[in-house]
Amino acid sequence: MSPEEFRKWGYAMIDWLADYPERVERLPVLSPSAPGDLRKTLPNQAPEQGEDFSQIFADIDRLIVPGITHWQSPNFFAYFPANTSGPSILGELLASGLGIQGMLWATSPACTELETHMLDWLADLCALPQAYKSTGTGGGVLLDSASSATLCALLAAREKATLGNTNRSGLHQNPRNQDLVLSTPHRIPKLIAYTSDQAHSSVLKAVRIAGIGEDQLRIIPSDSQHRMDLHALKAAITHDLQAGHLPFFLTATIGTTSSMAVDPIQEIAALCDQHSIWLHVDSAMAGSAALCPEYRHHFMGLDQAQSYTFNPHKWLLTNFDCNCFYISERQALTSALSILPEYLRTPSSESGEVIDYRDWQIPLGRRFRSLKLWFVLRSYGAEKLREYLRAHMEMAKRFSTLVRTSQDFILVAPVDFSLVCFRHQAGDAFNEKLLNTLNQNGKLYLSHTKLDDRYTLRLSIGAAQTQVHHIETAWQVILETAQRLEH
Amino acid sequence: MSPEEFRKWGYAMIDWLADYPERVERLPVLSPSAPGDLRKTLPNQAPEQGEDFSQIFADIDRLIVPGITHWQSPNFFAYFPANTSGPSILGELLASGLGIQGMLWATSPACTELETHMLDWLADLCALPQAYKSTGTGGGVLLDSASSATLCALLAAREKATLGNTNRSGLHQNPRNQDLVLSTPHRIPKLIAYTSDQAHSSVLKAVRIAGIGEDQLRIIPSDSQHRMDLHALKAAITHDLQAGHLPFFLTATIGTTSSMAVDPIQEIAALCDQHSIWLHVDSAMAGSAALCPEYRHHFMGLDQAQSYTFNPHKWLLTNFDCNCFYISERQALTSALSILPEYLRTPSSESGEVIDYRDWQIPLGRRFRSLKLWFVLRSYGAEKLREYLRAHMEMAKRFSTLVRTSQDFILVAPVDFSLVCFRHQAGDAFNEKLLNTLNQNGKLYLSHTKLDDRYTLRLSIGAAQTQVHHIETAWQVILETAQRLEH
Repeated sequence: MSPEEFRKWGYAMIDWLADYPERVERLPVLSPSAPGDLRKTLPNQAPEQGEDFSQIFADIDRLIVPGITHWQSPNFFAYFPANTSGPSILGELLASGLGIQGMLWATSPACTELETHMLDWLADLCALPQAYKSTGTGGGVLLDSASSATLCALLAAREKATLGNTNRSGLHQNPRNQDLVLSTPHRIPKLIAYTSDQAHSSVLKAVRIAGIGEDQLRIIPSDSQHRMDLHALKAAITHDLQAGHLPFFLTATIGTTSSMAVDPIQEIAALCDQHSIWLHVDSAMAGSAALCPEYRHHFMGLDQAQSYTFNPHKWLLTNFDCNCFYISERQALTSALSILPEYLRTPSSESGEVIDYRDWQIPLGRRFRSLKLWFVLRSYGAEKLREYLRAHMEMAKRFSTLVRTSQDFILVAPVDFSLVCFRHQAGDAFNEKLLNTLNQNGKLYLSHTKLDDRYTLRLSIGAAQTQVHHIETAWQVILETAQRLEH
Repeated sequence: MSPEEFRKWGYAMIDWLADYPERVERLPVLSPSAPGDLRKTLPNQAPEQGEDFSQIFADIDRLIVPGITHWQSPNFFAYFPANTSGPSILGELLASGLGIQGMLWATSPACTELETHMLDWLADLCALPQAYKSTGTGGGVLLDSASSATLCALLAAREKATLGNTNRSGLHQNPRNQDLVLSTPHRIPKLIAYTSDQAHSSVLKAVRIAGIGEDQLRIIPSDSQHRMDLHALKAAITHDLQAGHLPFFLTATIGTTSSMAVDPIQEIAALCDQHSIWLHVDSAMAGSAALCPEYRHHFMGLDQAQSYTFNPHKWLLTNFDCNCFYISERQALTSALSILPEYLRTPSSESGEVIDYRDWQIPLGRRFRSLKLWFVLRSYGAEKLREYLRAHMEMAKRFSTLVRTSQDFILVAPVDFSLVCFRHQAGDAFNEKLLNTLNQNGKLYLSHTKLDDRYTLRLSIGAAQTQVHHIETAWQVILETAQRLEH
């Protein structure tokens, strides 16, 4: 593609995307595709001869648009928000055009330094502990997802608890493991992790990946407001200690996936501190709310957490992927993940003066992810971002008020952030039918969960274009659909 | 950012990127930055008020360009190529603008189906085994990197070897593990992995992450051409079996990082088959060469490999990240990685008719990566892509001819693909000094490795804009610099 063709089709793509936010509102939110619909339109083989880009461009509207679920629709209320924005798109565009690799400081110093700096900016914007900043003992890094952050935290905790022996000897029985300081010197203690029954599935996934095994993950029950039950946690730790096990890792959540519940972080932190358990806090979805001082009480206790993660790619106008992972002791992370083969040695790395982010993540390669965050933070400014977040949280309150006025629906969880969990009084089967009917209609898209073992509808607010009138219309559509189904 | 502002700055960014390929040749390849250079120019805090995008845009040239190492320069010969191209950039641009999440088929059917289809196209283009196609027992997926692919392969192999017991019970000693069929029924066998001393560092990283431990990774020595030594491999397997261990995973390489050596895949495959060892083949860097029939002899034996990975983001005009990971038995992968919480249940997933790619990877979320691959494959067509790859491999031959004509330099590895390994006769210290002098000069950028324990220069060819005259000039610069340093 010549520079002139790139310019021509680049402009066309920018025009297409400039129009998309206005257009997306009129498209069915959930794709009406049936399995195989796209594939049957595509040739079985890649073309031998190049095609003119006009043909490719035309296929975006013809083939792709009907096949996607429009996460940018103002009527998208499913799962979690997946924000994008003009500045973020331009940042991603620049990153892909520069095409640099940020695995080492030396392979593009600006990629590493801008990332460190943006993580420090965000730490201050969210009033996170000073230890998470690069000026402290810890630091932050951009990863692809909170799942990866939780895995990295678990690995750092595993190596810290076993003095690096797991990386060397594995979790198999091994004489070397006896170097560990044990209460029962002739047994190999099992490493035990803890989380609540409301934690994200990535905690279980990380426990499996790291070789810990799900039998060693204690799923602590939650209370009536879906917060980790402290008594049950205490009992579990005590029981494990008595059995000669080694409690080593706990994931608490600020804003659970199902209902945005907030675990009692301060009390959990005190217990973790007492037993030298690594506390990892997952605030993937709710974390951006910490930009607003009036929501910071939910984040109390973070100064006792060894690691913390949240996703600007969910609710901070920055497109996927852009996960922030903070750690209070960076050496624990790099000790767990660093490998230095000859072909990656550089004078700057040897000097110890720089960060090489490959040692802070699972893969080796990395994109210039911080550009989009830099564009977003500068282009909006902190004030506008706070307004943006507050507007969504106000809309959630507005929707919960509407639910409260209804005789047929009830709220089933506190509305602390931007998610409303509710259900129709008519029972699980009715709610499931209601959800599927609503989603197939194309006017809005909700998802569901189970709370207290009952089918629950989730209205998650956070698309960049959602306004109060979308919430009010959504409520009308839900009410009318329920009434129609009742008869 | 209003649609009109987005259009204005989008055009500006497209213009900037359209000019970059021409301009990049005049910029120093390796960034001349010293540690902290960028950070000291940045404000300590994010702005409270939004800034005009003109200020942000101006900072690209002012702050970012001097701080990056230009991987797109035609004089970039370090590490490995990191191709980008017009169609790829436009694909990434569209993906970030659509802002969809492809974790489940239902969350955007086209994202899943286009990905499956592109992996099938590439399997045919590279004449990969039919089992790797979605029409067979296996399939392909796009991941962020070959490191992640190797980790996923290892996890699938671990669960297959332990009948899912590791996910459940962990690698700790556990009574349940005794369900395994063992030669020595009352011992827990250790899982043993194999690779060569030339394998990528990601193999060791995966072994650590998965809890296997590096003591259980056998680093098989390589022969004079840096290929895994078969006799040593046989001896290691025999020794482990005699010790009651369980050999379960082997990573072989087609195109090693240091020298692009090709392990004897067919012979390794026969051994793996005999001992039920999962064979994973890493061809991250060289894999694109399989598009050209005359290079396919290097890939013989892949039909016996349980998994395979290569990186279009290295050498196929598709920007990072875009890794292809193929598996011959998809159920082994999804059994290892699938977790289905209530909030991710969808009717389509329950039907079993669709692929949910979240079960094929470490994270949950995923971008619409296949768009850029679709744009690249259609826009160039297979013929042009083969020409592109052949041109680089011809340049490598040309450069190796130049090295052969020299009295001072020698080639130190066969040149099968697009990498030339060479060194000056004057010894390690001289070669290291030569490399650093060359790189600081800014006219070109090389990296190094050790082969046969001696410092070796690597000239890796594969930037989209590199032409024969760049190779010839590079050789002149190297010769002249060496002559200057000799005196």
